[in-house]
Amino acid sequence: MTGSTAASFTADDYRARMERAARTAAEAGLAGLLVAPGPDLVWLTGYTPPAVTERLTLLVLAAGQDPVLVVPALEAPDAQKAAGAPALTLRDWTDGKDPHAATAALLDASGRFGISDNAWALHLLALQQAVPGSSYASLTEALPMLRAVKDAAELELMTAAGAAADATFEEIRNVPFAGRQEAEVAADLDRLLRRYGHEQVDFTIVASGPNGANPHHEAGGRVIERGDMVVLDFGGLKDGYGSDTSRTVHVGEPTDEERRVHDIVREAQEAGFRAVRPGAACQDVDRAARAVIADAGYGEYFIHRTGHGIGVTTHEPPYMIEGEERPLVPGMCFSVEPGIYLPGRFGVRIEDIVTVTEDGGRRLNTTSRELVIVE
Amino acid sequence: MTGSTAASFTADDYRARMERAARTAAEAGLAGLLVAPGPDLVWLTGYTPPAVTERLTLLVLAAGQDPVLVVPALEAPDAQKAAGAPALTLRDWTDGKDPHAATAALLDASGRFGISDNAWALHLLALQQAVPGSSYASLTEALPMLRAVKDAAELELMTAAGAAADATFEEIRNVPFAGRQEAEVAADLDRLLRRYGHEQVDFTIVASGPNGANPHHEAGGRVIERGDMVVLDFGGLKDGYGSDTSRTVHVGEPTDEERRVHDIVREAQEAGFRAVRPGAACQDVDRAARAVIADAGYGEYFIHRTGHGIGVTTHEPPYMIEGEERPLVPGMCFSVEPGIYLPGRFGVRIEDIVTVTEDGGRRLNTTSRELVIVE
Repeated sequence: MTGSTAASFTADDYRARMERAARTAAEAGLAGLLVAPGPDLVWLTGYTPPAVTERLTLLVLAAGQDPVLVVPALEAPDAQKAAGAPALTLRDWTDGKDPHAATAALLDASGRFGISDNAWALHLLALQQAVPGSSYASLTEALPMLRAVKDAAELELMTAAGAAADATFEEIRNVPFAGRQEAEVAADLDRLLRRYGHEQVDFTIVASGPNGANPHHEAGGRVIERGDMVVLDFGGLKDGYGSDTSRTVHVGEPTDEERRVHDIVREAQEAGFRAVRPGAACQDVDRAARAVIADAGYGEYFIHRTGHGIGVTTHEPPYMIEGEERPLVPGMCFSVEPGIYLPGRFGVRIEDIVTVTEDGGRRLNTTSRELVIVE
Repeated sequence: MTGSTAASFTADDYRARMERAARTAAEAGLAGLLVAPGPDLVWLTGYTPPAVTERLTLLVLAAGQDPVLVVPALEAPDAQKAAGAPALTLRDWTDGKDPHAATAALLDASGRFGISDNAWALHLLALQQAVPGSSYASLTEALPMLRAVKDAAELELMTAAGAAADATFEEIRNVPFAGRQEAEVAADLDRLLRRYGHEQVDFTIVASGPNGANPHHEAGGRVIERGDMVVLDFGGLKDGYGSDTSRTVHVGEPTDEERRVHDIVREAQEAGFRAVRPGAACQDVDRAARAVIADAGYGEYFIHRTGHGIGVTTHEPPYMIEGEERPLVPGMCFSVEPGIYLPGRFGVRIEDIVTVTEDGGRRLNTTSRELVIVE
């Protein structure tokens, strides 16, 4: 989930992000933010602990205080090397000491704090006990859009990650499909993503024939056959920023029905993309894509939301889903990926990452969305 | 942290574990257990979700109910394939629905529940809100020894994992050290662990010269030199069960001081091992090892606890640490790994996994603990 090494941001970049986060938190009525290892911590400090264990590592951004990173003494040398470390005070603790008491001392005893979604329940429970008057909200709930708007340097990295995924697709469409296992094509995807600069591959879905009807099928031992639809969905991190694209290809000539279903998904994807503009609600993107599929009579076979945000992870807010009324803002990046899944038969999904511009949207994936025939 | 594929346990094995867990929970006064993706879930059900995201997957073991696995609809097909699935009821939920409300309906409204340490704060906060009368304790706090005692089949797998790590050490001591980067030796360790059957490598620490003084240094670009002490600490999962062993080697002839420090750590490790017996407290193992180092005048340079449990993860309770008064029980498996870390100079650590027997302890690592000279 976390970026291994973020791009070459400076301590000043991280200081600015921490200040922005603290300001946003104050505006939301929070006494501060508690940030656990993971994407939020990477984004705010450039720091990824050597391993996430039960030992507490927590960034405390409390109103009126300088940022403090509570860190196990063992890991302090690593933390000191993080690009954001000069913008932080490290407070290390040794085995046997109570890190929650040390953290509690930094908190407003009756404050409400935003805490990372993925902070461990272990730590949240200990803080609730150590500071009984405090209360907590998940960061996604409290500040869902904290990392959602990318600045110019981040957009450059997102664009480069998208281009690397596209280069991967342009090569994978020429490899042999028929007669090979899904897992072999998935290995090709992994190799290509890395060749084009990804340091981390998060998923290489190759879902052929009936496996395509399971949106989360990864890749297995099934031998791809002539006549199969094959959903390809792959991505990861390049220089700390995410890629994620899907294309559905066909091995040999498709049937009329296969072509029709692919056309519907392509139109739905286009409709979702066209709904992207500043001020539109996230759910508008979902509705636009879903309407095309529902109108074509396949509504019950589009069984997931239309999209998710992407940045230092490949899966984060904002979500393009019914009920998400928050507005799109220039600089946001997310997937638009409708699909149709026909149980026991085949599936189709088409996905581009889209960023919101001043007057609409821009695709970060630009390979053909026509049905590509592979061999 | 989680086993990719656990060994070939059956649905009956998982049913028995879930029943044991539910019984233990009831004895501890809990209304049930809430188990998030991760090692507890692997151990109880054999299930690892394709990815851990913000989508709720949660095993609910509530008193008087059959086990229920709450799972995103997208991932239900994967969950159904888990070896423990026949012992479970799957309750799937689709995007846009509230999985916490569905989970809340399964819970005693005023009950106290154990929840996985690594459950996301996001989910805990949502459950606290959905069931205001409920309360929660981390599983490690409530039932720290849930997975600590291994049965015979598990001990066989632990023994095999230890033997595979030992085979790795027997080969690594013969590779060239001087003139190569730490990362190259680490890559050798990774390759050997996999060759000897590990499907997951968790760490391959190669800490040479001054890097050895940082207990969590992994492996980097430093070129190992003649005259270096080199701490090797490596392990991972073989057939779903963990290995973890450390040896400190020397490149060429050591100085008298290096040899003396190594002797002290070896004696400390031996003392820790000899303290292992049923009924002894975990902290007794720490005290026994620490006393040797303190008596030798190096107390301030032993900056971590003496050991940690191991099983379906390489890092779990019980902890061999001052203040941990719980007793050792036959079948427990944990590391005994004292060390001395001399800042800017070198470090020494010696680590075996030890299992508690009916009348003492048995080492699962059996390579020489003498100072091995490498080239």
